[in-house]
Amino acid sequence: MKTGDSGEFGLISRIAAQVHSHQSVITGIGDDAAVTSLTPGMQLLTSTDMLLEDIHFCRAWHDPYRLGRKSLAVNISDIAAMGAVPRWALLSLSIPADLATDFISEFTKGFLAMAEEHAVTLIGGDTCASRSGLVISVTIMGEQLPELIIRRSGARAGDEIWVSGTLGDAALGLKLLDCGSAQSPGVEGRSLSEVEGVISRLLDPTPRVSAGLALAASGLVTSMIDVSDGILGDFGHIAELSGVGGCLQLDNLPVSDCFRNVSARFSGFPYELPLSGGEDYELCFTASPADREKIIELMKKCGNQATAVGIVLSLPGVTVQRADGSCYTPIFKSFSHLI
Amino acid sequence: MKTGDSGEFGLISRIAAQVHSHQSVITGIGDDAAVTSLTPGMQLLTSTDMLLEDIHFCRAWHDPYRLGRKSLAVNISDIAAMGAVPRWALLSLSIPADLATDFISEFTKGFLAMAEEHAVTLIGGDTCASRSGLVISVTIMGEQLPELIIRRSGARAGDEIWVSGTLGDAALGLKLLDCGSAQSPGVEGRSLSEVEGVISRLLDPTPRVSAGLALAASGLVTSMIDVSDGILGDFGHIAELSGVGGCLQLDNLPVSDCFRNVSARFSGFPYELPLSGGEDYELCFTASPADREKIIELMKKCGNQATAVGIVLSLPGVTVQRADGSCYTPIFKSFSHLI
Repeated sequence: MKTGDSGEFGLISRIAAQVHSHQSVITGIGDDAAVTSLTPGMQLLTSTDMLLEDIHFCRAWHDPYRLGRKSLAVNISDIAAMGAVPRWALLSLSIPADLATDFISEFTKGFLAMAEEHAVTLIGGDTCASRSGLVISVTIMGEQLPELIIRRSGARAGDEIWVSGTLGDAALGLKLLDCGSAQSPGVEGRSLSEVEGVISRLLDPTPRVSAGLALAASGLVTSMIDVSDGILGDFGHIAELSGVGGCLQLDNLPVSDCFRNVSARFSGFPYELPLSGGEDYELCFTASPADREKIIELMKKCGNQATAVGIVLSLPGVTVQRADGSCYTPIFKSFSHLI
Repeated sequence: MKTGDSGEFGLISRIAAQVHSHQSVITGIGDDAAVTSLTPGMQLLTSTDMLLEDIHFCRAWHDPYRLGRKSLAVNISDIAAMGAVPRWALLSLSIPADLATDFISEFTKGFLAMAEEHAVTLIGGDTCASRSGLVISVTIMGEQLPELIIRRSGARAGDEIWVSGTLGDAALGLKLLDCGSAQSPGVEGRSLSEVEGVISRLLDPTPRVSAGLALAASGLVTSMIDVSDGILGDFGHIAELSGVGGCLQLDNLPVSDCFRNVSARFSGFPYELPLSGGEDYELCFTASPADREKIIELMKKCGNQATAVGIVLSLPGVTVQRADGSCYTPIFKSFSHLI
């Protein structure tokens, strides 16, 4: 059966039947608008991301379940980056007529599994036909007390620049998966689990919600952003909005063992990937050097890690430095989808 | 200059510079998520709609300014249909590389003009490249006191079925504008202003916000929906969610003078258009027959009109009756984009 056979309302009903609603949802899918109630005293946080076939994902290598998970994860990541609690999501799909119902069914399962993991309720959306590829548009809403919300604009000269987890895995995964070719030359000579480790970071990223909330609650963090376009460009947004600059220590950028092993097959170390490869969905944040130990301890408690990767400077502009003090000139500044 | 030349961040900055923010917006465009504050005691209403080129609109006959207006208007209409106040919007655009910057600039002007008319603030969005046509995804948020929110589910047997304004103009406009052909045969023999009247209902619909709010405040309305897919299908949603049925009086459906004059060239009266043509964006609602005069008076005060077009019945199913009591069998049940 193709998706078009059952019509728009059949699809919406099937999705609605699988949704686990939470207490804050007064009216979910099925009316002109969803009705929800915020926790008293909290402010509303809202973000949206669009994913297009053959631009943000390829059906040839992105299975529908993980595509569903990722569609929500990249949105939840934006709420995590504000130190807020994700609550409600809207999902719009523009579906090619030839897409099998199974694809949308698996996609929905993945989307709702990610929602469950973060107690997010799907409260609405839209479905329509597409004359070209699949289009996915997700809106996420969250909430937080005003005094705990962390913005991009609070970094101060002298603060340390931090990043959670490791960088570059997703970008390396993208290098390995040549869009459309199932067997990439990058896979040769490496163990399957290592290759799958980096590819999984691309296809099924984890939003850093608990780390974001812990950092917000700590009151130690002066600014925060999620690393979706590479830390170079994303710290650049913090710098710009905070009216500061900064210097990133190239050799301090945290990479996974998988990344180190798999990337060894490339000539030279692929510095560009952790620096500006994109799709890491880690948190980049700034804090006073005096709070270094507290930050490390707090992130460890969340089952995550934090690495100090640079320093905020008063002069504008972001530079990159090698361990020997020399300047590194990046090839790409930032990952951009508008090409 | 093509849109791709200036990059994603240039486009977002240009849009952000034109936004008039309102007091409820704490942090607008530019951070990972927007931050807004609800009026204490109010609940949040959220809805989203996606518009695709050559499915929901054609660039050949939809000028960018009115396309921008409509993209927001159809979303605001969903908030109006809940009897709520529209507040904040998100706009995501997937832009073909060959689209001129002027198009997006005019589109944005139209979108923001509609926003201003309803005191809505654009607080965020997403932009990316498109390999096929233009994709527009809008999310709207509004607020209202819990006790004033009107749902689809409250209609009671014996209530009258009402509709605001007139039906069928937009569908007739669509008939006249044959996608891709600038000069339609339908235009012959009619005055330009009449033709433009119906076409304008299609290209630049007006969300019935003040009518929705007045109806909500009156406490007289038992259920409400906006008529986007034709009153037959949309009252059908009310009937289904309210566990009732209904009978629509075909000859009572309100049509404009423009509709009557322009449609006269078609053989027979085109009943299907006011019944199931779609894109009217009027409000369909139910209320006790005892409140008939109050409803008419209240709608007049909003500069609108209301017509009683049928009766809610306890048996499920929606039928259509002629003035002579005979049954009319509709050709189409409802307008659906998922074909």
